Amino acid sequence: MAAGARVADLARLVGGDVRGDGDLVIDGVNDLRLAGPSQLGFVRDKKALALARESGAGALLVFEPLEGHAATQIVVADVSLAFARIASRFFPVRRATESDVHPTAVVDPSAELAEPVEIGPHVVVGARTRIGPGAVLLAGVVVGADCDVGEGCVLHPRAVLYDRVRLGRNVMIHAGSVLGSDGFGYAPDLGPDAERRWQKVPQVGTVEVGDDVEIGANCAIDCGTMGATRIGSGVKIDNLVHIAHNCSIGADSAIAAFCALAGSTTLGERVTLGGHVVSAGHLRVVDDVRVGGNSVLLTSVDEPGDYMGYPLQNRTRWARTLHVFGDLPEIRRRIRDLERDQGES
Amino acid sequence: MAAGARVADLARLVGGDVRGDGDLVIDGVNDLRLAGPSQLGFVRDKKALALARESGAGALLVFEPLEGHAATQIVVADVSLAFARIASRFFPVRRATESDVHPTAVVDPSAELAEPVEIGPHVVVGARTRIGPGAVLLAGVVVGADCDVGEGCVLHPRAVLYDRVRLGRNVMIHAGSVLGSDGFGYAPDLGPDAERRWQKVPQVGTVEVGDDVEIGANCAIDCGTMGATRIGSGVKIDNLVHIAHNCSIGADSAIAAFCALAGSTTLGERVTLGGHVVSAGHLRVVDDVRVGGNSVLLTSVDEPGDYMGYPLQNRTRWARTLHVFGDLPEIRRRIRDLERDQGES
Amino acid sequence: MAAGARVADLARLVGGDVRGDGDLVIDGVNDLRLAGPSQLGFVRDKKALALARESGAGALLVFEPLEGHAATQIVVADVSLAFARIASRFFPVRRATESDVHPTAVVDPSAELAEPVEIGPHVVVGARTRIGPGAVLLAGVVVGADCDVGEGCVLHPRAVLYDRVRLGRNVMIHAGSVLGSDGFGYAPDLGPDAERRWQKVPQVGTVEVGDDVEIGANCAIDCGTMGATRIGSGVKIDNLVHIAHNCSIGADSAIAAFCALAGSTTLGERVTLGGHVVSAGHLRVVDDVRVGGNSVLLTSVDEPGDYMGYPLQNRTRWARTLHVFGDLPEIRRRIRDLERDQGES
Repeated sequence: MAAGARVADLARLVGGDVRGDGDLVIDGVNDLRLAGPSQLGFVRDKKALALARESGAGALLVFEPLEGHAATQIVVADVSLAFARIASRFFPVRRATESDVHPTAVVDPSAELAEPVEIGPHVVVGARTRIGPGAVLLAGVVVGADCDVGEGCVLHPRAVLYDRVRLGRNVMIHAGSVLGSDGFGYAPDLGPDAERRWQKVPQVGTVEVGDDVEIGANCAIDCGTMGATRIGSGVKIDNLVHIAHNCSIGADSAIAAFCALAGSTTLGERVTLGGHVVSAGHLRVVDDVRVGGNSVLLTSVDEPGDYMGYPLQNRTRWARTLHVFGDLPEIRRRIRDLERDQGES
Repeated sequence: MAAGARVADLARLVGGDVRGDGDLVIDGVNDLRLAGPSQLGFVRDKKALALARESGAGALLVFEPLEGHAATQIVVADVSLAFARIASRFFPVRRATESDVHPTAVVDPSAELAEPVEIGPHVVVGARTRIGPGAVLLAGVVVGADCDVGEGCVLHPRAVLYDRVRLGRNVMIHAGSVLGSDGFGYAPDLGPDAERRWQKVPQVGTVEVGDDVEIGANCAIDCGTMGATRIGSGVKIDNLVHIAHNCSIGADSAIAAFCALAGSTTLGERVTLGGHVVSAGHLRVVDDVRVGGNSVLLTSVDEPGDYMGYPLQNRTRWARTLHVFGDLPEIRRRIRDLERDQGES
Repeated sequence: MAAGARVADLARLVGGDVRGDGDLVIDGVNDLRLAGPSQLGFVRDKKALALARESGAGALLVFEPLEGHAATQIVVADVSLAFARIASRFFPVRRATESDVHPTAVVDPSAELAEPVEIGPHVVVGARTRIGPGAVLLAGVVVGADCDVGEGCVLHPRAVLYDRVRLGRNVMIHAGSVLGSDGFGYAPDLGPDAERRWQKVPQVGTVEVGDDVEIGANCAIDCGTMGATRIGSGVKIDNLVHIAHNCSIGADSAIAAFCALAGSTTLGERVTLGGHVVSAGHLRVVDDVRVGGNSVLLTSVDEPGDYMGYPLQNRTRWARTLHVFGDLPEIRRRIRDLERDQGES
């Protein structure tokens, strides 16, 4: 954690106004229920006001001045964003500051390690791979041959890159995630006995990841069959996400946990997928589409907007569809009544 | 596997009555189709009777006396529970009995290892971490700094704990699971170009796991954003489960494979989730709720009972809803008929 | 990558007819958009013709002669299969050609390594385990005790086999997958306080995998509770698939990403599951069943054919059901109209 900061300096960092003692020194952030006199808490909306009044936080980040509270306050228009920035000031992303290669790491002599890098215990780095300055490879990470790991990347324990995977700058990959595994490609082979078997299609492409990408734990991102699977700059991916061969995820998109994209799915920029969204392959989603959780994409999405469901619908309509769905037993009863009444009439 | 046991002693272990030779020595358990004369099989219900009659098992655990069978029998009220206890007698959970730290393990000098512990090849243990007596860390496990691994814990190969994760006693974590990865938290940042980007919210909390918890393979359990993600004592979690930041799972709950709980989901005690259940975040499920497989929780559940579906319903009602759903093409046809008839009338 | 080949020889490999210069030497395959004069591209169907006309590929694999194109052509009936075979000629599966055991690997003295095998950095091989000739165990693989790893198997980084797992010949397991973890088996135990707890049922079975199986990244395949979980020869499994204890997958079946099979599911031969298919346990699917993506199997499937949905239906009927489902708000409106009209009549 970084050193303390004056409230006035934190306010300047987020473009906020100070109410109270701007010289108060804050040394961290915390939940309103847990924060102490040298910590800053945040009040995102009116629902949080009750907690705020009882909070022991020395400073509060608020969307409007909170009257009658002893804490120093920073008033900002966007509390969530300001809080993220201040918290990042106290808890910056880990970065190598001096070179440290653990003696148990196995680094191929032809690999190029910039200065400084941290290479943890039992890490493996393959031939001709380049690791950029500031990068941190934690315990047990495996990076294959001919990879690029850009400046400031952080690979958490046991992340695996197959050969030829390229990461831009400031990419974070959480523990257990795999980039570059073979895509699921087989040609049916009706051999001489006319019984179908599977002939593997060699998967010879790679994975290209832009800058400022974060990938959660235990994900699986396949290489392209030929060419690359692409993850654009600024993309955020949660845990246990499957991205098949030759998908392309546009910049600044966000994919929540438990999503699965079939082969050659193309998402535009700033697309957001809620948790547990699944796509059929070879479809295209334009920029600025937001898909709610538990949706299934079977066809392309050509217009920006909010969607949800299976089949995918306008989000408002899906809420109605789901509501009627929950009433299906009544609907059948009403049809029976209509049929009976009509039979009698 | 432990040494053999007299049937009479096994019966005493499970509070059962012996029919036949209580001095018979049994040295293991097996499936009825595979069991031999020194093994015990179990007959859970009437469906298993046919297999039991043909079984070569030397002893049988039965819910009622099985007439005309040569095997010694133990009669109990709850065969499943009695079998689990007897099988656990023969196959106890692994526990370190003498200290053994593999020379390839990398244990920080400030870590505290109790006696005895087993630390396998290529294991990494971080600074100030405490490992309790009897604990077994199998090959390639990574435990971060400032962790607590309680007495009798078993961590299977390549399990990963990030810094500050705390496990109670007798916790078992299967291979590849990750505890303490960053939650999926970002604030939208409409920068000067008004194009949305994501500002990471530092994830500075931790994961606290109670006693007697089992977690399956390749799960991902995030740390709290602030504060802890909590897994209560006695909780059982299957494979490939995602538990997001700040979830809280009450004691003795059970979560089958392929479930995903979004951030701040709170489950009460003795809640059971069937396979492939997904929850939206910030909802609360009271004690003693049972949710059937493939369900989606969008709102809190305030009453104990059996639920299923999407939208979540009383389980009986869901069966009806699903049945009508399968008939939708007929339902539309019947509406068309009604409309035609009404138009004609 | 293997050495170059004459087009005429490639045509012979796939039973195709050459149009043009059969002596042209090709040294690889590529996407039509990327292929150069010494590479072969493929034209699977009429949709690909436009790309083919602009392709710089020196040779083309086509389903019918492509008039007016400078490239040498190989005409075959099944382009996908022929392409897979030719690509496999240039990119054969990795196989150990001389023995190479990395000095950081920890191989139990009682393990039997055939000649040649490749054992990468930080690999662990347990007691009495046998590794067949040609096998490649990449960095960080953990193989337990008493395992069999057949001839020509390739285990990618950090794959884990628990004790007693058996792999046939030419099995490929991608990074992070786990075979042999404990099944999810507990007996409810209403102790003296009548509050339910869970008594673990020891999971003492194993996993048996046939020949020519491929398993994707970060899968979890549990051992049998007693007896084996079985994966038949020729089976292909994609990423993040869960296969519970005592499942049995028939030969030449294919399971796409994100499927989850509950305990004791039995699939016949040549069964295909699209992505994100979930099964309840203890059900049986006969040979030659094809299940579309996002389906839920709650009961056994007794007839070969194409199925989809939840509830599972004939695939054509499911498309209709889903269509009507998307119209539910209109359907309710039509019922209201009918009720109103009938009330008025």
